[in-house]
Amino acid sequence: MSDKNAVVLLSGGLDSATTLGLARARGFACHCLSLDYGQRHRVELEAAARVAASLGASAQRTVRLDLAQFGGSALTDTAIAVPIGGPGPGIPVTYVPARNTIMLSLALAWAEVLGATDIFVGVNAVDYSGYPDCRPEYLRAFEAMANLATRAAVEGHKLSVHAPLIAMSKAEIIRSGNALGIDYAMTVSCYQPDATGRACAVCDSCRLRRAGFADAAVADPTRYRDHSPGAAV
Amino acid sequence: MSDKNAVVLLSGGLDSATTLGLARARGFACHCLSLDYGQRHRVELEAAARVAASLGASAQRTVRLDLAQFGGSALTDTAIAVPIGGPGPGIPVTYVPARNTIMLSLALAWAEVLGATDIFVGVNAVDYSGYPDCRPEYLRAFEAMANLATRAAVEGHKLSVHAPLIAMSKAEIIRSGNALGIDYAMTVSCYQPDATGRACAVCDSCRLRRAGFADAAVADPTRYRDHSPGAAV
Repeated sequence: MSDKNAVVLLSGGLDSATTLGLARARGFACHCLSLDYGQRHRVELEAAARVAASLGASAQRTVRLDLAQFGGSALTDTAIAVPIGGPGPGIPVTYVPARNTIMLSLALAWAEVLGATDIFVGVNAVDYSGYPDCRPEYLRAFEAMANLATRAAVEGHKLSVHAPLIAMSKAEIIRSGNALGIDYAMTVSCYQPDATGRACAVCDSCRLRRAGFADAAVADPTRYRDHSPGAAV
Repeated sequence: MSDKNAVVLLSGGLDSATTLGLARARGFACHCLSLDYGQRHRVELEAAARVAASLGASAQRTVRLDLAQFGGSALTDTAIAVPIGGPGPGIPVTYVPARNTIMLSLALAWAEVLGATDIFVGVNAVDYSGYPDCRPEYLRAFEAMANLATRAAVEGHKLSVHAPLIAMSKAEIIRSGNALGIDYAMTVSCYQPDATGRACAVCDSCRLRRAGFADAAVADPTRYRDHSPGAAV
C-alpha cells in the first residue's frame, strides 16, 4: 500500500463515500474536504465526518463558505422549493452555480500545500441530475486549468483529477461500495433531510438513490421519514 | 453606456482598482467581489470598500473563506516572514496556493446568478511577482473550463475573463488609472501594512508599486510608515 496523499471531496452522500472507499482501496492516504456552503441539507456534513472516520481517512476538514449569499439554487435558497415530482427536462433548480468548480479549487489549494497530486471527486455522468459540472469534458478542462495554476504545476508535478464513478450507473456504484464493505446507512443523499438525517424519498437525489438500490438488488439502508404511499417513487 | 453586468475581483490594491476603473469606463455595471481569506493585510478589505464606492460600483461583497487553515503562504501564515530584500528567483513565499482559481470560481458563481458573462481580474504578467496563476495561459484555461462548468454555458452564454492589465507595466497601469481619475491613495498594495493601512515600502508588492510610480513619473500618494533610508527601494 502506498502512502501517497490525495484530497477527496466528501459531501457525506453515497457517491462521495464510494469514491473515498475506492481511493482508500488504491492505497491513498486520504485528506477529505467537505464544504459547509449554506446548504439546506447540512446534516450531510455530519455524515461526511462519520464516513471519513469509518473509511480510515487521514484527515477531514470542513471549509465554511457562504454560497447562499449568491443564491440561485434550491439547495441554498429556502425560497426555492426542492422539486419532488421526479426529474424534468433541463438543469434542475438544485444546481448550485459553480459549486463543483469552487470545491475542486479548494481541493487544489489543499493538495498543493500537502504536496498531493491527486484529487478524487464523486461526480457521475450517467445517473447524474443534469448538472453541467458533472460532465467528463468539464473535469478534463478543470484538470488542464489546474495544471497551469499552481507552483506545483510549474515545478512539474502533474495534478490528476480522478472521477472513478464518472461512467458508472448508480447500481454499479452501490455494488462496488458494497464490495468494499461501505455501510451506506452512514450516508445522506437527500436534498431536504430532517434534522436527524432521515430522507424525504421523493427529491431527485432520493429517487436516484432508491432506484440504484433497487437496480443493484441491494437492501436500501436509508432511513426515510415518510412511508406513506404518496412518498413512494 | 451599457448596463451590462460584470463581476470584478477587487482586492483593494492598485491593480484591481485600475481594473474596476477600466471596466466602468467600458460601461459595465460592476459587481465587486473581495475575499477575506485570512490574509495578514486585511486592511486591503477596507480599501476595497472605499475603491468600490469611489468608482461607482453597483455592488460590493466580501466573501469570507479561511485559506489560512491550509497554510503554505507568507500571506496567511504569520510563521512565514514576508520577504523584504527584493524579488528573488522562483515563485515567492507570498504565493497563496490556488488563490486566483478560488477567487475566479467565486466570481463565476456570482456571475451566473447575476446573468453576467464578463469577469474582470487585475492580474498582470509583466511586473507580476512570478505567480503561476497570473499568466495568460492560465487565464485562458480558466475561461475554457468556466465555459463548460455552468448552466449559463450550457445554455450558450459564453463567459469572458478579462484581464485588461495582463500586458501592461506597472507604470502603464498607473498612467491609465491616473487618466481615469483614480485616487491611488485609497488603495493598499503592501503585504504587511499597519492597522491604519500604512505600507512597509520594502515587501515585493511595495517595491513594484514604488518603482511603478517612479517610472510613470507620477507622484506616489502611498502612505509609508517608515521613511528612514533603510526603507528605501
